[in-house]
Amino acid sequence: MTDDTGIGSPEWVELLSREMRKRWSAVADRTEQMAGHALLAPGKMLRPVLLLNSAEATGGDSAQLLPAALAVEYLHVATLVHDDIIDDDRLRRGRPTVHAEYGMADALVTGDFLILNMVTSLSECTAVPPAAVLEAARVLAGAGSDVCRGQVREAEMAGDLSCPVSDYQEMAALKTGALFRGACRAGAVLAGATGEHADAVTRYAEHLGVGFQIFDDLLPYLGDSTGKPATSDVANLRPTHPVLVGHEVADDHARQRFAEALSGRLPAESHALMRELLIATGALERSRQRAAEEIAAARGSLDGLPGAAAVEQMRAIADLAIDRSR
Amino acid sequence: MTDDTGIGSPEWVELLSREMRKRWSAVADRTEQMAGHALLAPGKMLRPVLLLNSAEATGGDSAQLLPAALAVEYLHVATLVHDDIIDDDRLRRGRPTVHAEYGMADALVTGDFLILNMVTSLSECTAVPPAAVLEAARVLAGAGSDVCRGQVREAEMAGDLSCPVSDYQEMAALKTGALFRGACRAGAVLAGATGEHADAVTRYAEHLGVGFQIFDDLLPYLGDSTGKPATSDVANLRPTHPVLVGHEVADDHARQRFAEALSGRLPAESHALMRELLIATGALERSRQRAAEEIAAARGSLDGLPGAAAVEQMRAIADLAIDRSR
Repeated sequence: MTDDTGIGSPEWVELLSREMRKRWSAVADRTEQMAGHALLAPGKMLRPVLLLNSAEATGGDSAQLLPAALAVEYLHVATLVHDDIIDDDRLRRGRPTVHAEYGMADALVTGDFLILNMVTSLSECTAVPPAAVLEAARVLAGAGSDVCRGQVREAEMAGDLSCPVSDYQEMAALKTGALFRGACRAGAVLAGATGEHADAVTRYAEHLGVGFQIFDDLLPYLGDSTGKPATSDVANLRPTHPVLVGHEVADDHARQRFAEALSGRLPAESHALMRELLIATGALERSRQRAAEEIAAARGSLDGLPGAAAVEQMRAIADLAIDRSR
Repeated sequence: MTDDTGIGSPEWVELLSREMRKRWSAVADRTEQMAGHALLAPGKMLRPVLLLNSAEATGGDSAQLLPAALAVEYLHVATLVHDDIIDDDRLRRGRPTVHAEYGMADALVTGDFLILNMVTSLSECTAVPPAAVLEAARVLAGAGSDVCRGQVREAEMAGDLSCPVSDYQEMAALKTGALFRGACRAGAVLAGATGEHADAVTRYAEHLGVGFQIFDDLLPYLGDSTGKPATSDVANLRPTHPVLVGHEVADDHARQRFAEALSGRLPAESHALMRELLIATGALERSRQRAAEEIAAARGSLDGLPGAAAVEQMRAIADLAIDRSR
């Protein structure tokens, strides 16, 4: 699953990181220690920042929402901890993953603990009416459930080059988009936004999520990897966006070579072959274009929202989502 | 982790099972199908039944609380699904476990999905004031977090025969007691119980949890196993209640034999040796006595509660917890 180093609003990232350290650096037992190991790795807090920005963009106040912002990060990090078990990834954000450090059994339990802490943390928003907190919990739990559906669907697609690009986009909307959507919508709900305003940040998040995921799929072929091993997608037989786009337009001969590249044999060579195919078919360029369109749609979704400064931040986040070199 | 076949209130079990089937037999996708596989195995719905009984025992109405009762079962079954991955148990309630049927990755995601559905289901209690639903969510999430702490602590204790019996009881209170406590307290909170009444069912649950776990530890040595492989605890190097009690009173020679029995070599023979040691040291009888005391304390905790019929049911559940042959 996608990590998010390289994107964010510096002041809020600093505030959130400080709060996270305060809560998780002096801990009571091994369970909290493992949770802290996962939570205190340097990250960009993209989803919590989106929650806070959405509260302000829709005209609310984010000052009381720090526990809710942490809650969405707990959920996100839980999915990372469990994903790393599934993919047996040993490094994350430059540190050993939880299961590499503490073993599979404890890492599995740590992920569960983090999901449950999402609820505990949300319930600390005592300055917000309980009905709104409960609705935010429902929204985030629904988002988390959608992430699960997306992961299962992605596994079903493994190795399937004939999978329609539209199916891929549905999967990405679940696996990656759902948490963006949950964060933004929860922020609006907690801020007491109107339905119309909440829908606007929800649309923003949906476009952002798909654009973000497509760009993430492109990264291994652009030469500026963010720490994700360049060969990981082909090694895991993942038919990503550019691969499906390229396969769709390829002739029979090229399709055979796509199949070779996604056969799971010799990951490093497969990766080079795949890159060549993606350039030759124009898929890299088309996927990049598609990501840019999603980001433009995300920006446009925020038109007319009352919180101008937060809207600007959210647009900047969208821009950075397809240019992580900055 | 402990399963709970053999205990319950027949009418409510039937009602809950019907509701569970209604929700999970015709499903939308593979994720729900896997959740249904785990949820629809014939179980006794002990924790949901406790939630409903606690609502009535404290003077409330359980009619609107079905979604909350299902929520606690989702959380319980999630821990079972993940536990079965950790222990690589292939059978549960007479059916293949989720990871045996669908693979580790999907089973892991299914457990997460079930935890998140706990929140979704709770939020369906729309006839209850949102503040009470939110508090119930906090209580159940805290209970789930304690289960995680208990699992991690149990793993730390593996193979440690010198672990004090009191540490074991703390661990059991977390691993097994916490969900009973969460179910009972959530039921009381949702029913609008007084603090005093909510505390009473909470104490009941704490005693029930420890008594239940100790009796569960005894089962493999009593010859009426409930489907849990008799050798599983010694094979997993788990120093259970009778083992720690026996080791505490044993002389040096007997302690050496305890160490042999818990060495992980030859599970079947180790089990027979352990049984012999537990009888010789009087540990079986002492543990049984301890479980009976906890159950008596559980029964007593309910004195003075307004819902007489529900109190009777809760006492019957407590009795059955240490006599599962009935």
